[in-house]
Amino acid sequence: MPADSYERLVTKLKRVHHLGTVAGLLGWDEQVNLPPDSADLRAEQLALLAELQHAAAADSEIGTLLDELEDPVCHLLSDKCAGAADRRVVVREARKDYDRVVKLPAAFVAEKARLSSAAYHAWADAKERSDFSAFAPFLEKHLALAKQEAAYLGWGDRAFDYAIDKHDPGMTAAKLTELFAELKAGLVPLVREIAASPVRAKEGVFKGFPVEAQREFLREVTATLGFNYRRGRIDVSLHPFCEGPGADIRMTTRFDADNPLDSLFSSIHETGHGLYEQGLPLEAQGTPLGQNAGMGVHESQSRLWENQVSRSRAFWRFFEPRFREKFPAQLVSVSSEELYLAVNEVAPTLIRVDSDEVHYNLHILLRFELERRLFAGELAVKDLPAAWNALSEELLGLTPTEDKVGVLQDVHWSGGAFGYFPSYCLGNMMAAQLWFTVRAKYPELDTDFEKGDFSRLLGWLRTEIHEQGRRYETLELVRRVTGEELTPKYLLRYLRERYGPLYLG
Amino acid sequence: MPADSYERLVTKLKRVHHLGTVAGLLGWDEQVNLPPDSADLRAEQLALLAELQHAAAADSEIGTLLDELEDPVCHLLSDKCAGAADRRVVVREARKDYDRVVKLPAAFVAEKARLSSAAYHAWADAKERSDFSAFAPFLEKHLALAKQEAAYLGWGDRAFDYAIDKHDPGMTAAKLTELFAELKAGLVPLVREIAASPVRAKEGVFKGFPVEAQREFLREVTATLGFNYRRGRIDVSLHPFCEGPGADIRMTTRFDADNPLDSLFSSIHETGHGLYEQGLPLEAQGTPLGQNAGMGVHESQSRLWENQVSRSRAFWRFFEPRFREKFPAQLVSVSSEELYLAVNEVAPTLIRVDSDEVHYNLHILLRFELERRLFAGELAVKDLPAAWNALSEELLGLTPTEDKVGVLQDVHWSGGAFGYFPSYCLGNMMAAQLWFTVRAKYPELDTDFEKGDFSRLLGWLRTEIHEQGRRYETLELVRRVTGEELTPKYLLRYLRERYGPLYLG
Repeated sequence: MPADSYERLVTKLKRVHHLGTVAGLLGWDEQVNLPPDSADLRAEQLALLAELQHAAAADSEIGTLLDELEDPVCHLLSDKCAGAADRRVVVREARKDYDRVVKLPAAFVAEKARLSSAAYHAWADAKERSDFSAFAPFLEKHLALAKQEAAYLGWGDRAFDYAIDKHDPGMTAAKLTELFAELKAGLVPLVREIAASPVRAKEGVFKGFPVEAQREFLREVTATLGFNYRRGRIDVSLHPFCEGPGADIRMTTRFDADNPLDSLFSSIHETGHGLYEQGLPLEAQGTPLGQNAGMGVHESQSRLWENQVSRSRAFWRFFEPRFREKFPAQLVSVSSEELYLAVNEVAPTLIRVDSDEVHYNLHILLRFELERRLFAGELAVKDLPAAWNALSEELLGLTPTEDKVGVLQDVHWSGGAFGYFPSYCLGNMMAAQLWFTVRAKYPELDTDFEKGDFSRLLGWLRTEIHEQGRRYETLELVRRVTGEELTPKYLLRYLRERYGPLYLG
Repeated sequence: MPADSYERLVTKLKRVHHLGTVAGLLGWDEQVNLPPDSADLRAEQLALLAELQHAAAADSEIGTLLDELEDPVCHLLSDKCAGAADRRVVVREARKDYDRVVKLPAAFVAEKARLSSAAYHAWADAKERSDFSAFAPFLEKHLALAKQEAAYLGWGDRAFDYAIDKHDPGMTAAKLTELFAELKAGLVPLVREIAASPVRAKEGVFKGFPVEAQREFLREVTATLGFNYRRGRIDVSLHPFCEGPGADIRMTTRFDADNPLDSLFSSIHETGHGLYEQGLPLEAQGTPLGQNAGMGVHESQSRLWENQVSRSRAFWRFFEPRFREKFPAQLVSVSSEELYLAVNEVAPTLIRVDSDEVHYNLHILLRFELERRLFAGELAVKDLPAAWNALSEELLGLTPTEDKVGVLQDVHWSGGAFGYFPSYCLGNMMAAQLWFTVRAKYPELDTDFEKGDFSRLLGWLRTEIHEQGRRYETLELVRRVTGEELTPKYLLRYLRERYGPLYLG
């Protein structure tokens, strides 16, 4: 076996990576810059890049190199060889990626892409008319394809596990069921207590915040948190997102003069994603060692900065004077306590994306339970709206009056994205668990934040999470970093500690 | 021969085209958006795209398809077959492109790329220190490679003709020599007369023009001229440029609060390029029928809108009130006549890119003459600065005091771009010739402009120039559209008519 097999593998992987970054940039540009009538060209460009990226990822030479490297006599991966541990990670993860690409027949991939495109339009139309039945056949077909995909990949009838593992390596439906049951047991009573509280955030206090000043303030905040604007930027799009590799992160936000906290917190959320990507080892860019560990871990980073850090007293002790400096007139009649309560407003809503962090996880439990039943055959697609509404009442205390604010609210199922929502809740649990771990290690974090210094926290996340790349599966990473199994108890504790004093006296 | 050879050829050509548009977008993004430390990633992405584009353009199946289509018995290109004329153009031009790609050995292309990269840095450094001798070896090497390239392409020792033809198909050094001699004979006396005139544009009248209002005004102007902002946009970069296919044009400008005319006219210039691209037949996108006819023709469009149209009395009769509306205070002490003289300021400068349109062509004559002598072996690279300075004195009446404002001022030679500068002057001659042609046809154009209506002019350019794609070589296109051979006499006449009344009483 030639000694340079590993180097040749890395070269091939980087090619796939770079094509992905180009497609990512075109996707960003589509949301941020694309003139309205240029969409056809962009579709052509993206289709071509998808084809090239698929060809690069399915390059049979990758398979040959992996076979060579996986051979038991391969010296390069043996413990006796320096750097072998890193190479084992790369080979292990590259194998997963390669199999995922080559085990799916091209006709299947094309069928799923066609279905997703048709289902997207069917969903948008059905949502507009609040008529789930028009979307149901597409969802049924997606469900069938998801099962077929799992079978192709060798997961047999464990299709839901496969769907979950795709987003969070190593996670299973059984494990999620256990975690979510415990979370629900603690969360439902908490939201009931808060609902019964007479405390309410003052309404209508945020009016007329000029966009330019909002932009300056959120830039100051995100740069202070540690976002490196020499390797990234923030622009405006309809929905906020974060795109690109750590070498060039493109975040977006949106502005509303009457809702400055929305763009501020969505920017901080995307900054959390961006900090993670910027912290991945740049020298390993394009290999699994330089890639993120999955959606749940990614979300743990965005949520930790958005919630644990930026809704804290310490954060606002530092930033409140700066916020008032930017908007002296607008905030003159808002007290510090009113501002802090507005930052931590809790109110149930039917819409997941509008939800506060206390209710948010209930939205995820709802979707997870329905997906679980669909995959288990316990629930038929046609019965989804009724099941959705019943669960919504049980978990949130709210029943949707129409499908557009219920079962049809999210786009994800139109793309066949099952097993995807749990990542958000996993991220929240993990963020809280990391939060208690790092605060136990560094009791001075609050004092740091009050001085506008977030570097100790970021440094710890860099070492413990970011620099690990795809070395560990989600649960193992949590175990290694926190010394404990992943558990919802820290999320529950965090929520009680944050919201109890505000709403429960 | 299979009947679908032509369709298969078109599919292949579109692939090359789309890869080019992706690289173009990345290039635009690099100038407009790229965070400072993300340049390494962009270089990797662009290198990969260049490799993919080269592979697509050199795809041997293109050669096979061209061979089939060029076969004398090929029905598809015979006069009896509907649409054959269009197909002949596509095959003819695709052959030129294909040969240009496959006749150059990969090692040669790589060597030229490496040299260009090294030469760029050497040039920047030499310019900084005003020391031509440090750059000379790179220019010598480029000259040698240019001769080698021409030989590879079958041009024998006609290396300069090959370099010219690359930018303006069909043009030769002999033809340029003839055109430029006539131009020089008329131009040098004109600039001498204007230099002797006591009339001078008032200095320092443009101060404190807010950028946001400048942006609004130039957007209004460019949209009124006909730029379709639904298929394009304008942003800010260090140097203005226009990038992208007609389906998605990205123009740039730059702003200076104390020089509003600079960004206005550079935007109009880029709008001229953009209008051309937007006017190329969209349905033929990716084939030579949907591509521009070369640099000279492209420049004729940018110059016509920038100079003939936008420095005219009629244009300003419409836009002056709008300009004053945007900047009432800034323009209060500037009379209409002073404004018009500022728009048409003539003053010699050593720097080509800062030159007014009267002197501009002299800068081109200077470079052309030096390139001609270099290729003919009449001038050694080491003697270039002395020859430059002598010609500068002869043509412009100015002698550079150092190389950075003389022979080292332009970046182009560091990339081996010989035969490139004449296109600018060709464009100016052609713009003037088109101008007299269209005004003879539509004497009411001035009245149109005074009403802010530029559609009649644009419609004519669309039909006569834009929609022709690469159907005709430059000289043939001029002959067909104007009924005359290309001649400098219209440019000379235009300059006398525009500047005579202002400067020569």
